[in-house]
Amino acid sequence: MTAFNNRVSEVVEAALTGGEGPYLRERFAEGEENLGKAIKTFAKITVKPGTRMGYHQHVGDFEFYYILSGEGKYNDNGTVVPCKPGDVFKCGDGEWHCIINDGDEDIEFVALIVATI
Amino acid sequence: MTAFNNRVSEVVEAALTGGEGPYLRERFAEGEENLGKAIKTFAKITVKPGTRMGYHQHVGDFEFYYILSGEGKYNDNGTVVPCKPGDVFKCGDGEWHCIINDGDEDIEFVALIVATI
Repeated sequence: MTAFNNRVSEVVEAALTGGEGPYLRERFAEGEENLGKAIKTFAKITVKPGTRMGYHQHVGDFEFYYILSGEGKYNDNGTVVPCKPGDVFKCGDGEWHCIINDGDEDIEFVALIVATI
Repeated sequence: MTAFNNRVSEVVEAALTGGEGPYLRERFAEGEENLGKAIKTFAKITVKPGTRMGYHQHVGDFEFYYILSGEGKYNDNGTVVPCKPGDVFKCGDGEWHCIINDGDEDIEFVALIVATI
């Protein structure tokens, strides 16, 4: 058993990937010894109002978003759809996505990136 | 892209694995075509007050719990510790665990089971 209750949070500038504004990434665990070979990222992301994550492609992996709180938009390969708590989106290997917070409260979601094996 | 917003929820009788009471399991996606080869389960679990999940061993896989809401106990290989929102626990391959809801509100958590590869 391992409890990961002192996790490192990091502020990521969305501008680095073509977005706008900062977002918070809290990785639940890190390293192959904890996550295994397949899981690249298992984290909670917090996107402030007015922040747009960079629209990006997944290559060699795929990602799930599980929306915990807040409402905004999810860009699915160029098609923008609403997102709300409880929604689950998958961005497949080779696909593109991002989250846009055009609401007035934080959007929090669980992000799970899995290597394509 | 795939949006999984019409997910099947199932009520699981904890008694089947030596526990007590029912809990709700809402799988975010199912099948290797959606989850890949490594992910066995990615789900939200809701454990009602008074419910004790069966204390069980993981063999051939490992599991993360990410606590979303509620407070109770986490049995870590026989050692019982408190759990609260934000906590992350890992049950490694070969280890044992369960959740006990001895509080007065639902415990909700994200469960991620990953094959050991």
